[in-house]
Amino acid sequence: MSDTQLTDFLAACGERIEAALEAWLPPEQAPPAKLHRAMRYAVLGGGKRVRPTLVYATAVAVGLAPAAVNAIACAVEMIHAYSLIHDDLPAMDDDDLRRGRPTCHKAFDEATAILAGDALMTQAFLVLARDETLAVGPAVRLAMIDRLAWASGSRGMAGGQAMDLEAEGQEIDLITLENIHIHKTGALIRASVNMASQAAPELAPELADRLDRYAKCLGLAFQIRDDILDIEAPTEILGKTHGKDQAQFKATYPALMGLDAARQAAADLVGEALASLEPFDAKADPLRWIALYIVQRDR
Amino acid sequence: MSDTQLTDFLAACGERIEAALEAWLPPEQAPPAKLHRAMRYAVLGGGKRVRPTLVYATAVAVGLAPAAVNAIACAVEMIHAYSLIHDDLPAMDDDDLRRGRPTCHKAFDEATAILAGDALMTQAFLVLARDETLAVGPAVRLAMIDRLAWASGSRGMAGGQAMDLEAEGQEIDLITLENIHIHKTGALIRASVNMASQAAPELAPELADRLDRYAKCLGLAFQIRDDILDIEAPTEILGKTHGKDQAQFKATYPALMGLDAARQAAADLVGEALASLEPFDAKADPLRWIALYIVQRDR
Repeated sequence: MSDTQLTDFLAACGERIEAALEAWLPPEQAPPAKLHRAMRYAVLGGGKRVRPTLVYATAVAVGLAPAAVNAIACAVEMIHAYSLIHDDLPAMDDDDLRRGRPTCHKAFDEATAILAGDALMTQAFLVLARDETLAVGPAVRLAMIDRLAWASGSRGMAGGQAMDLEAEGQEIDLITLENIHIHKTGALIRASVNMASQAAPELAPELADRLDRYAKCLGLAFQIRDDILDIEAPTEILGKTHGKDQAQFKATYPALMGLDAARQAAADLVGEALASLEPFDAKADPLRWIALYIVQRDR
Repeated sequence: MSDTQLTDFLAACGERIEAALEAWLPPEQAPPAKLHRAMRYAVLGGGKRVRPTLVYATAVAVGLAPAAVNAIACAVEMIHAYSLIHDDLPAMDDDDLRRGRPTCHKAFDEATAILAGDALMTQAFLVLARDETLAVGPAVRLAMIDRLAWASGSRGMAGGQAMDLEAEGQEIDLITLENIHIHKTGALIRASVNMASQAAPELAPELADRLDRYAKCLGLAFQIRDDILDIEAPTEILGKTHGKDQAQFKATYPALMGLDAARQAAADLVGEALASLEPFDAKADPLRWIALYIVQRDR
């Protein structure tokens, strides 16, 4: 991989998702204006767009045009943005900074932030149900909605956040920590890749399974890297508060297994992710670049 | 209408929705157990079940068996329950009592309440996408998901709650108040009736429109009655804090138009709701009973 290829791909995905989100977010002037401003504030103009990028890269790997999966990219990013808004609330992780700016409840108020999260979640399902550029039949579309609802709910992302809160201040082991992350961040990352596979219904199930394994490994590697960055990266690069996990005595991979072992675990998972892609040709290169980027990123 | 007929119908709907919800809520023992307990606490064993009852009554009116629309009844009640959990939070309406019991964030904690609401919302969409007893094709099912997402989001229920919060402590006029309620409570009530109509795709569009008009009138009448009850009914009958609206200087129908005029407005709307049902035969009687019940209920 050349750095330019990855940079170009990320930039193209970034522009594409920004335009898709812009098109699907209610206009700022439409009432209730404050709620719509808060939704747009939380979603537009920031974030690494990891999940939409994975959606686009998976689409390319299975022979689809990125434009064919805009709705999926939009939906997963809206779900992700809603979860960040709610996780940052005082009753949850109580964070003031996100993507280098005040969190939604700081920029607006708590009530508006709660509602903006709620409304973004429903909007994600609306996009999947309604977006006409998603060229799949209604049965496949329903399967995607099913996938997203499962991945976001109490057995997926929301459940992972609940587990994380319960574990706070407790001594937990590596298996428990992994279980938290499989749900909290892993479920939506996997769903992003799964839904993009679903958009190519003629894809061989074995290949869809391999993409799923890629996503599973990548999700965990991503979280381990996040934990390492919380220690290593300064707040101004991170865009969120540095050292937050340690300050809250949160269990993290570096805390449980040491920094070097955590780095090795992330590298091993990325290796496994890459191995899962073996049957794929060069069209899967963006997925390969993303895997390498995950462990190298500094924010 | 005899009182027995209505009582029997309400009881049958109550049992039916309770069983359907029980079947679709995650078991209490499944991890994360606290989150699942909170979801079940907020949904099971209480509430008037107005929306599911409307779903069942509409199904009967259009010639369907109530069992055919269990998934719809479940989905709207989960959305309603999530909205109550979030509305009751300290950052929103800050209420301690709901359905005669401590609110979800009082019985558990704020973080769990926020997540329980989030997870109930995703579960509603999961039920609609997945429930096999909903005997409609995938295209109709998608249209229902679209309808529910629109009715719950920033242009519907969540938007209505945002408008309501913005109006707090402000002098607003009757048109603004009505606009709040059309969104805050009306949208989901209308969607309940609309989705049940959608379950009978062969229903003439003119009849579906009439059912929609019924629901629109009923939703407003319901809210006006709610406002009146906040003044008239004691806390122990209401199951939520009496006089809350007045204490918070909230605009209500009785406050804006006087108690007698508010009663008259509710009665007029119920009259209009009943008139909308004229082309329907006796199968629509449960819808008629509900309309009369709305203005007569004392909690």
